Amino acid sequence: MEIGMIGLGRMGGNMAQRLLQHGHRVIGFDPDAHAREALAAHGAGTATTLDDLIRQLPAPRALWLMVPAGEITEQTIAQVRPLLAAGDTLIDGGNAFYKDSMRRAETLAGDGIHYVDCGTSGGVWGLAEGYSMMIGGDEAAVERLRPIFEALAPAKDKGWGRVGPAGAGHFSKMVHNGIEYGLMQAYAEGFSILQHKREFALDLHQVAEIWREGSVVRSWLLDLTADALAKNPSMDGIAPFVADSGEGRWTVAEAIDLNVAAPVISLSLLERLRSRDADSFSDKLLAAMRNQFGGHAIKHE
Amino acid sequence: MEIGMIGLGRMGGNMAQRLLQHGHRVIGFDPDAHAREALAAHGAGTATTLDDLIRQLPAPRALWLMVPAGEITEQTIAQVRPLLAAGDTLIDGGNAFYKDSMRRAETLAGDGIHYVDCGTSGGVWGLAEGYSMMIGGDEAAVERLRPIFEALAPAKDKGWGRVGPAGAGHFSKMVHNGIEYGLMQAYAEGFSILQHKREFALDLHQVAEIWREGSVVRSWLLDLTADALAKNPSMDGIAPFVADSGEGRWTVAEAIDLNVAAPVISLSLLERLRSRDADSFSDKLLAAMRNQFGGHAIKHE
Amino acid sequence: MEIGMIGLGRMGGNMAQRLLQHGHRVIGFDPDAHAREALAAHGAGTATTLDDLIRQLPAPRALWLMVPAGEITEQTIAQVRPLLAAGDTLIDGGNAFYKDSMRRAETLAGDGIHYVDCGTSGGVWGLAEGYSMMIGGDEAAVERLRPIFEALAPAKDKGWGRVGPAGAGHFSKMVHNGIEYGLMQAYAEGFSILQHKREFALDLHQVAEIWREGSVVRSWLLDLTADALAKNPSMDGIAPFVADSGEGRWTVAEAIDLNVAAPVISLSLLERLRSRDADSFSDKLLAAMRNQFGGHAIKHE
Amino acid sequence: MEIGMIGLGRMGGNMAQRLLQHGHRVIGFDPDAHAREALAAHGAGTATTLDDLIRQLPAPRALWLMVPAGEITEQTIAQVRPLLAAGDTLIDGGNAFYKDSMRRAETLAGDGIHYVDCGTSGGVWGLAEGYSMMIGGDEAAVERLRPIFEALAPAKDKGWGRVGPAGAGHFSKMVHNGIEYGLMQAYAEGFSILQHKREFALDLHQVAEIWREGSVVRSWLLDLTADALAKNPSMDGIAPFVADSGEGRWTVAEAIDLNVAAPVISLSLLERLRSRDADSFSDKLLAAMRNQFGGHAIKHE
Repeated sequence: MEIGMIGLGRMGGNMAQRLLQHGHRVIGFDPDAHAREALAAHGAGTATTLDDLIRQLPAPRALWLMVPAGEITEQTIAQVRPLLAAGDTLIDGGNAFYKDSMRRAETLAGDGIHYVDCGTSGGVWGLAEGYSMMIGGDEAAVERLRPIFEALAPAKDKGWGRVGPAGAGHFSKMVHNGIEYGLMQAYAEGFSILQHKREFALDLHQVAEIWREGSVVRSWLLDLTADALAKNPSMDGIAPFVADSGEGRWTVAEAIDLNVAAPVISLSLLERLRSRDADSFSDKLLAAMRNQFGGHAIKHE
Repeated sequence: MEIGMIGLGRMGGNMAQRLLQHGHRVIGFDPDAHAREALAAHGAGTATTLDDLIRQLPAPRALWLMVPAGEITEQTIAQVRPLLAAGDTLIDGGNAFYKDSMRRAETLAGDGIHYVDCGTSGGVWGLAEGYSMMIGGDEAAVERLRPIFEALAPAKDKGWGRVGPAGAGHFSKMVHNGIEYGLMQAYAEGFSILQHKREFALDLHQVAEIWREGSVVRSWLLDLTADALAKNPSMDGIAPFVADSGEGRWTVAEAIDLNVAAPVISLSLLERLRSRDADSFSDKLLAAMRNQFGGHAIKHE
Repeated sequence: MEIGMIGLGRMGGNMAQRLLQHGHRVIGFDPDAHAREALAAHGAGTATTLDDLIRQLPAPRALWLMVPAGEITEQTIAQVRPLLAAGDTLIDGGNAFYKDSMRRAETLAGDGIHYVDCGTSGGVWGLAEGYSMMIGGDEAAVERLRPIFEALAPAKDKGWGRVGPAGAGHFSKMVHNGIEYGLMQAYAEGFSILQHKREFALDLHQVAEIWREGSVVRSWLLDLTADALAKNPSMDGIAPFVADSGEGRWTVAEAIDLNVAAPVISLSLLERLRSRDADSFSDKLLAAMRNQFGGHAIKHE
Repeated sequence: MEIGMIGLGRMGGNMAQRLLQHGHRVIGFDPDAHAREALAAHGAGTATTLDDLIRQLPAPRALWLMVPAGEITEQTIAQVRPLLAAGDTLIDGGNAFYKDSMRRAETLAGDGIHYVDCGTSGGVWGLAEGYSMMIGGDEAAVERLRPIFEALAPAKDKGWGRVGPAGAGHFSKMVHNGIEYGLMQAYAEGFSILQHKREFALDLHQVAEIWREGSVVRSWLLDLTADALAKNPSMDGIAPFVADSGEGRWTVAEAIDLNVAAPVISLSLLERLRSRDADSFSDKLLAAMRNQFGGHAIKHE
């Protein structure tokens, strides 16, 4: 079928390519000419404005939004909304906050426009391996897009599904990312313990490779960890600085809101915050307190 | 080659079977006649005493110990030690504490007996899929056992390796289990968040299946979780009571000993302790304290 | 000076009494006639409506709001706002979210009404011992209320202060409560460890009394804990169910928003959530997962 | 009464002084001549060898050991043991591991020597304010030392007590320190949150002073924190490096051994470990993993 792709960055560009590979017609829009040209080289049509994009698509239109969550998503939806007609479908494949998605679905429904929130996992590997997609929205709207999801997924009937009404897709993706934080932190701690056991001089890459086959902890993240350890076993030159994209924060807040204790997911987020605070005020205060009551020496900067 | 298997329980029995399937000759010993008979039905020889077992094996002997860690391992080694001769090899495939393994290796070395500690992962699935094995011990002793490890592993040259001297195998397996605790807890928390979001009425099994394909959180543990959710989506009749086998405790203690902060692995263990303390004294005291300072009502049992 | 007190519950009634004891004139309002009569018995004037209350106060008026945070505070401010005049001051002594306080200050400033947010700590003990007050708002407005704060505080110039602009008072109180959660949890855990060490048969009340004098952990919360342990050393009849009032949640969210890792405050909140989830879904799932991979027995409900 | 003090460092020297102030006769031993002379200036007798010390004391002797826990305590006890006679009492006032104390008590009991383990809290403030003492040992032996404990305590009948048999004193002190870690961490996190809220430009010292009077979080540790913040409000020149003395580690291990979940005490210890690991391997690995799956940029050192 035909679909417009708004946002041709790392994720959007790859997804458009995968759709092309599966025989779909894709019209891509991105303000960056290089991104448009790169996609055109794979056989896509392109548009230089949102107007142009929407004109090139047959009604009822399918538009896939793959732009950063937050302000840019909000603005882009505001821009396309007046250009769309009743019966069109807008899919947000980014990492929007699910309550924003619920609000957007309701607003667009007022215009007869279908809104589908598609939590998309797979990262840079999705082009080759397919994407895992948790989808929220009206059943009919999702069903109409079936050929698109079948093409993007790892297999026709695997790795994707409508999980509930609008918002349910991004909610599930949010929790997915919260779990991801926890899994990553568990591996990172484990390998750090191995690395600190100097007397055994363990080869971390070797251990990772052993675990990849037959062990209880085998996983795709372990596969990636093994690759990272193969390339750089002692993590030379890498700063101990871990970014977070926002979904972990939402998961922690949502868990608390639902009265669910999620200590491991929460701590995994906090560990990332801590990694970016080399000059921890609380640790300085702790050192000062110890000095106050016990006369313990303070280490000076 | 020929090998004696001491302990024909769930793990030992399965491993013996897998060795038989790969053409090795196995003599099995277990005090339980049913366990011996079950293995004999697969083509193994059996022995009714340790003496008998050792007599049936050609020198230099290879003996695989697959009994519960702790007292039973200690006693069994004490019993076989005087029966063995210089050049024989004893492999401990159980979950012994690595410092015990180091001590045992040193003691047995005094008799010229090789000791190999093999951390074994794979659970009840290992018979079909092969075991992941982290091995510690002398290079020559491990090398001599290569055909055994190749048969037990998922593939000839995958999922097993000598990671260091005696103790290094069980140390690596201990950390493996610590990671396992963290991974499990991360999934459990995530699915609990999904489950508590009643408004979306999410089908947890469906979400797990979607994640199994193409997502960042795909893993073998997720595969198992999906199976568990398929059978019993609301966990009916299952008590919120999580046992721990000891390796998590060692990992937490070892991390602290190495000055490694492992908050997620540590919290995963504590969550299991908490799951078994339905009558938490600290929570009662917290309720009493709130009542003391704020006059907040106490919920009575 | 003269002040109107809106809300004559446990906190508001006690604060009004303490003001009366210090020679201030208080007009109390509460929809509950019993609460009004109780305060009148201490020498306060009372009002049966907000209109009535405001009519009885000389301009520029001082009104102290001591009602539950959230909806009731919002509604009460909406009701009094049209009744107030430029120059009047409204103090919110409750546990409002500081961003709400900032918004309210701005809105009321449009009418020339001063808004002062006063985080108030002290609980049921404040009547006798005085309240600790962290105050946000215009300097002049706070200064005009000095006699009120001096009367409510433990001592004329102690235990109170203007800490910043509107919102700063409730922000500081929020963090105060976050710390409180952490302190309480630390004591609760410690006493639980003592209680579980059966071989020493420790008398927890005795230990608490020893710690109250000269130890590093002496505190007012320990004093209260000692009282609680004196009355009920084994916490008989108290359910392990710990409520939370909301300020801990805000503290956790705010810390994350500020990129501050606050693991102990966060875990203290999560422990309370956990205390109210006797039927933990995550723990059930963990038990099911262990059964899946290791064949470990599940405990049934 | 008469008592020998072994170890005249910060703690031992101060305690000896306090005993002198209360009219007791103290003979002090320390290998460091300066420490002996300093104490002699306060009126104590001194000894240059352990032999000499014990000769100067009348039977039945009372000897107070105030040396670092671990090897030095072990060696010192080994040295004094042959010099002591049945009926003598050895008090260990340091931070020994309680199982060591139990073992020592049993060994010394074989010689008829009483062993008393006294967990001592109070730090550098104990000289002026008195020490909090949790005492383990035989009732009669503890009772005989009553005048010593009454002098060291903040008040004759306050701040000290026999809490159980040998080991119970050091066990209680260990848990005391675990709680201390939790309390300190809670304050440190709270002040860090306040400090990061730049828009309010809070004066942390002022907030601490307000909380000291009438608030729920008032405590001696808060008093000290206020002092530290008064001297150095922005913690200038203090490294975010927090030492730990060992008792926190034991508390965490003991809690796990008793199946008590103590997340806040545990995390407080881990935060200290983390503070000393500026070059965290786990954080580097997390950054590398993010790069692997999402192409997220790595920050380079």
